[in-house]
Amino acid sequence: MTDPRPARPAGSDAADHEAVRSANLAFYSAFEASDVEAMSALWEHSDRASCVHPGWPVLRGWTAIARSWSAILSGPDRLQVILTDERVVVVGEVGWVTVDENLLGQRQATVTAVNVFTRTTDGWRMVAHHGSAVVARR
Amino acid sequence: MTDPRPARPAGSDAADHEAVRSANLAFYSAFEASDVEAMSALWEHSDRASCVHPGWPVLRGWTAIARSWSAILSGPDRLQVILTDERVVVVGEVGWVTVDENLLGQRQATVTAVNVFTRTTDGWRMVAHHGSAVVARR
Repeated sequence: MTDPRPARPAGSDAADHEAVRSANLAFYSAFEASDVEAMSALWEHSDRASCVHPGWPVLRGWTAIARSWSAILSGPDRLQVILTDERVVVVGEVGWVTVDENLLGQRQATVTAVNVFTRTTDGWRMVAHHGSAVVARR
Repeated sequence: MTDPRPARPAGSDAADHEAVRSANLAFYSAFEASDVEAMSALWEHSDRASCVHPGWPVLRGWTAIARSWSAILSGPDRLQVILTDERVVVVGEVGWVTVDENLLGQRQATVTAVNVFTRTTDGWRMVAHHGSAVVARR
């Protein structure tokens, strides 16, 4: 009988990549759904956490980051995010994703982002997000 | 007899932080000096390396990144970089630095950046850089 499961065991590189990819998708799902609780659940609640919204200075520490997400997600904008050109890298206890966020809604923009995650006993948590608008070249 | 050496051995958290901080400073020194060779030496030459210059889309892989630095560092701009509000995080084989780059020269700007490094047998190498202009708020 053929075992349909992938040959690599859980905890392998492939499983880690998938777990980080899922954590990254959860971030964008929370953003699209304006779900503050889901957004809170996927972040590391620590002083070392950092977040750069497009055009903003860096926010450091979960308190400042949470405040920004509460304001952004309670605002009037409802944006759909089409992710393209996603790449996942995992090195030990850290994974990061570079991805383009194609935003559709009241404002249209392409934001390129790097999202850093660390492995915890409860799964991967976002510890850094940095998004910046891609400016059209002439 | 009191041992004046710090209690933590080499390879400790404190030593790792200092090594990542030094690698980060080397990046800005190479930038200020327009030193293409120094810039090349501090990057990981791999497909997973990524680089976002302010307003640019992500560049992936060392070949594309090297081409961008050659163009930027051979250009007419000579910029001094005053770094402020630098924070270093190290988790295992990965370190990242969030820092503000205050650029002085023909153009003045504040760029906020996250720089990711991985530990190699030859020291820490930059594997991701993402810089974005901080836009003045009104």
